[in-house]
Parts: sequence; C-alpha cells; structure tokens
Amino acid sequence: MKFIILFGGASFEHEISIVSAITLKEKLRGFDLNFIFCDQDHKFYLIDSLHMKATVFSKGEYKKMPQLTLNHSSFSQKGLFSSSKFTGTVINLIHGGDGEDGTISALLDFFSIRYIGPSVGASIFSYDKRYTKYLCKAKKIKVLDYEVLSSKEHTNITIPYPIIVKPASLGSSIGVSIVKDESELDYALDTAFEYDKNVLIEPFISGVKEYNLAGYMANGKIHFSIVEEPQKDEFLDFEKKYMDFARSEQVLKADISEELIQKLRTNFDKVYRNLFEGALIRCDFFVINGEVYLNEINPIPGSMANYLFKDFQAAILELSNSLPLVKRAKVSYEYIHSIASAKGK
Amino acid sequence: MKFIILFGGASFEHEISIVSAITLKEKLRGFDLNFIFCDQDHKFYLIDSLHMKATVFSKGEYKKMPQLTLNHSSFSQKGLFSSSKFTGTVINLIHGGDGEDGTISALLDFFSIRYIGPSVGASIFSYDKRYTKYLCKAKKIKVLDYEVLSSKEHTNITIPYPIIVKPASLGSSIGVSIVKDESELDYALDTAFEYDKNVLIEPFISGVKEYNLAGYMANGKIHFSIVEEPQKDEFLDFEKKYMDFARSEQVLKADISEELIQKLRTNFDKVYRNLFEGALIRCDFFVINGEVYLNEINPIPGSMANYLFKDFQAAILELSNSLPLVKRAKVSYEYIHSIASAKGK
Repeated sequence: MKFIILFGGASFEHEISIVSAITLKEKLRGFDLNFIFCDQDHKFYLIDSLHMKATVFSKGEYKKMPQLTLNHSSFSQKGLFSSSKFTGTVINLIHGGDGEDGTISALLDFFSIRYIGPSVGASIFSYDKRYTKYLCKAKKIKVLDYEVLSSKEHTNITIPYPIIVKPASLGSSIGVSIVKDESELDYALDTAFEYDKNVLIEPFISGVKEYNLAGYMANGKIHFSIVEEPQKDEFLDFEKKYMDFARSEQVLKADISEELIQKLRTNFDKVYRNLFEGALIRCDFFVINGEVYLNEINPIPGSMANYLFKDFQAAILELSNSLPLVKRAKVSYEYIHSIASAKGK
Repeated sequence: MKFIILFGGASFEHEISIVSAITLKEKLRGFDLNFIFCDQDHKFYLIDSLHMKATVFSKGEYKKMPQLTLNHSSFSQKGLFSSSKFTGTVINLIHGGDGEDGTISALLDFFSIRYIGPSVGASIFSYDKRYTKYLCKAKKIKVLDYEVLSSKEHTNITIPYPIIVKPASLGSSIGVSIVKDESELDYALDTAFEYDKNVLIEPFISGVKEYNLAGYMANGKIHFSIVEEPQKDEFLDFEKKYMDFARSEQVLKADISEELIQKLRTNFDKVYRNLFEGALIRCDFFVINGEVYLNEINPIPGSMANYLFKDFQAAILELSNSLPLVKRAKVSYEYIHSIASAKGK
C-alpha cells in the first residue's frame, strides 16, 4: 500500500506538522511512503526521506527539491519531456490552518485523491471551537459553558473568573490564556485576537480531570485507542505541547474504571459517527463529578496519536482500507433543452 | 472591474448553474466578464460569451474550447510558448455540489483568488440542512421540528403525517417528497436516499406562508432585497424551480406589514452575520402564527436572486468591493530547532 504524507501548510502549526511527519517516518517504517511538503506559499515539494529533517525546512533547503503540482488522481512532477506521477492514499498531516479547516480535504476531494483525514464538514465542526459547541448541543454531548467575543469591544463577560480565553480556531494552545481576574483580561484578549477574529471564553476549572481517547472507524465499527491521562502543568503551553507532538513511545493507560472508559467511548462515538468517517481523531475530555464533557476534537492529532495505539501500523492499514467513497454527482442535460426552448434560445 | 463567472460543477444542479450563468450574462451586461465552465470531470474551460448557450454544454461542444488550469491568483491557458492568465473576482455560480458544499471556496482560497460566494464554513452550514438546524439552534432562530434518518432501516418517525422528506444536502427540491401517510413513505425515502445518505423529515404544513429575502454585507452593513412571496403549487418541483432559476424580471414586493419585514430582516441578520460575509444569499422563511421560521439558506441563489434587487449591478459591485480578507497564517521556524536538538536530530 502506497501512502503520501502531506505536511506543512500555511498554518500557525506548520512546525508541528513537520515534527509529526518526521515522527511518522519512523512509525510507518516499512511502508511505501512519499513525503510531500506544502510551503507557506501553497507550493508542493517532494521531499526524499533522507531530507526529512528540521533544518531542510527552517533553512529553506526544501526549495531545491522537485516542485509538484496537484492534478487529477495524483501529484505530478513535470520534466522537460515527461512527467512523473505520485499516487497513493494521502495521510493529511497538516495541523491547523489548511489541513484542519477543510481546505486540503476539499482540494483532495476535487482532484479525486483518497485521503486519511477529516472531510470538509468534519473539519468545520472540529477546527472552530464555536462549531464544536453547536455539534455537541445537537448531539447531546456535554460541554463547558461558553461565550463568544467577536471583537475586543464587547467585553461584558458573564462567566465568573477564573476563565480561559481561546482563539476560536486554533489547536496546540496557541493564543490561549488563563485569566484569573479582570486585570489580566485585556492582554489575554489581545493575544487571542491576534490569531482569530473570534474568541471563546470558558470557565477555567483548576485541577479538572482530563482524558484523551483516539479512534477511527473501520469495517463498520469504531476502533478505540487506550485512554490517556495527559500530564499537565496547569495546562500545556505551546512549547510543551510541541514536544508532545514528537512523541512516539506508547503511553501508560489511564488508571480509571471500566465504567468511565465506557462513558468516554460512548461520547467519542456520538462525536465521530456520521461525520468523521475516514479520519483518525483524538477527543479530549474533561470529567467533572463523574460526568464526561467534550473539551475539543483533534481531527489530525499530533503524530496521529500513534502512541495511543498498540499496533499503529495495523490501525493505519485498516483505516485506509475503509475510507468512505466520495460519490461524485452525475450530470445530465435533461431539462436544459426545455428551458432553452421555453426561453426561445 | 473584472469578473469571472464560474459555473457548472459535478452537481445534480449542474444544468441550473448553466441557466444561471446565461441569465447573469444578460444581467451583468457592460461588465468585463469571463465565463469559466467546470465540467463533471472537474476540468475547467473558457467559454467565450457568444458560446454561452445551452447546447454548447448539452452537446459537449465546450470540450473544443480552451482548457484552463487553476494556478495561484489566476486561471491560466497554456499555449505552446506562453500562457494567458485570467484574473478577476470570481462569482461562484455553481449550485449544489462543488459550489455550495465548500469545495470550490476552498480551492479559490487555496489559490488566493477573491470570490463572491459562501466561505467553506458558511457552505457547510447551508448545504447540509442538518447543520442549518444546528446553526439556528445556536443562534436562536426558529426552525421546524426535524428528524434525521441515515439509512432506510431506521424508519420510526415520530413526526405526525403529513411530512416532507428531503435529502439532507440538496437544493432545488431535488429528491423532495410530501408524504401524506405511511403507505407513501418507502417510495419517498428511496427517492431521497438516491441523492444523499442522510435524509431529513419535517412536518408538512399545508398553506404555510413563505417569504424569501436576499441580502449581502457591504461597508459594514447588510443590504436587503425586497421580500418576495414565492408563487407555489403545493411546493415547486424541480422543473418549475428550474424555470425559476432563469428569472430575470423584477418581482413584485410581498404585500406584508413593515413589522413583518423587520422580523424577517432580523432573522436574516442572525443567519448572515459572522458567517456569510462575502456572499449574496437568499433566506427562505416560513411564517406561522406571526412567528418567523427559517426554512433554508441558499448561499448561491439561482441567478443570484437578481430579480429581488432594484439595482443588481450596483449590488454586485458593492459586494465585490467589500469581500472579507482571507488572512494566511505566517509560518515561523522558532521552535523547530529546540525540538530537533532535544531529539538529537
């Protein structure tokens, strides 16, 4: 089975994506892999596996690699007299903008390229935290209270301090602050609005229990990872999460009851089913007084949450064999003649 | 000002899009227009304005026209020694799949081409009627009760007959049936499931008052069209709606109170603001006992609802001068060295 690891993107999480791709190179050793890098100008480059290291990107050396264009069913490299095609199932590993906001999914759909990753619709509901709230409300999944600010001027927040201030549409804790009282609010809002024109306010619950659960649908059922209790230091800042994205060692299973595991799975299932098919996602939950709350959905978790799966390679193979079919509408010209003649054209 | 009318698409509403484009050719006479056709194989063709007639498409003659590729900031035609570029603000006129499901929007965003039309997020909330319900619930806009079926087997419908059965994600009444009692249900479901794997059930309210209102945001405020009371014949079937899409004559204003107009506008504003910026949309409302209910959002209405605006050309110019800026994230390589050195790479 051939895979294309697509990474980079014009995203605040661009670097994280590079780290994820380097990690997957190891974790998917033995697979037939091509690495395709999307730079901040939305150009695609073929990176041979020996060049899959940080400095190739940070020093701009990737620009010397072969440039590719996206065509129907493949990426292609144009030579003087011929062109080479790169085909295979894409693993969309672009975190944040481009990868998780639906752009790359739509591009791959349009050019009929199969991919592991969230569909356009699934992206919208996970990338923007406001829409995750809408989804949860509709699917009766508990979430924390929230308020949305769409500009700094409307700052009459009714949620009592301490609060957490987040840009509506970023992962990896970028632009996120805990605000203990009003004196810290302006700075936190400035920071968050730098990344998004919409900002979410939620209550900050100190010491809340957090659990992460990943999974994917294959052969008609959802396959779950182990449940992880993430280490935390109030909350992970960007740099700590960053290190986290390079993780490749299997983590320890959270020491929780079978009943709680079941509750987390039930909530994961409600989020996933009928929306995230084709993707391996991680749901981050809070548990408060025994009740499960969805915190956020990572539709492309760092390094594909490989460390949560006992046999990550088997998971990727199984998922890639169960990707949903994208049905393209068939066009007909049945009515056009009647309308044309009715209009005398 | 230069515009590109983008039409066609792999969509069940492909033909309607052609009709819309032909209509706009007349309505935007005097503008600098290029017509670009997307065929069912997702290939782009430049259609000169003399060839903008139904038979060019139904007979496949468009295949003799110059083929274009989508590049950064333009569509381009490759010649033997040089290439011509076609630039300008795109008017996304692809109804249904591709145009209204976020695909084309994402493509244009990725290649940095400005367009009039719904963003990817706005598309998701209008194309799939389930998500329109989610949006309305979150924004406190009244909608009819509904149930979702995702396969024919789960047919325990609790909404009393008569009901209306709709594919979740199509416009123009395609696949829609009114079901008066259970004996008609199977056939209606078969029809709807032909077009979508999710089907919506709603109560059918005979003789309900319907009003359509279009509008767009420019210069920081929403500009509304007149309110139209659509003619209806129980409900418009595809063929009747089809004729409707070719409309170019201004319709008569609905004879309703100033108070009701205001209520419709307030609801339109709630739907539009902070989501549909950049698009000219039409909202179709029901009025039941003086209360306004949203029926559906048309993010690319047939012929751009030109017939609802007194000065359609002015509207298009004003909107095209107020398109939201798509901010592309700037990439940095600040952290990647620390992670690389921490991992000893």
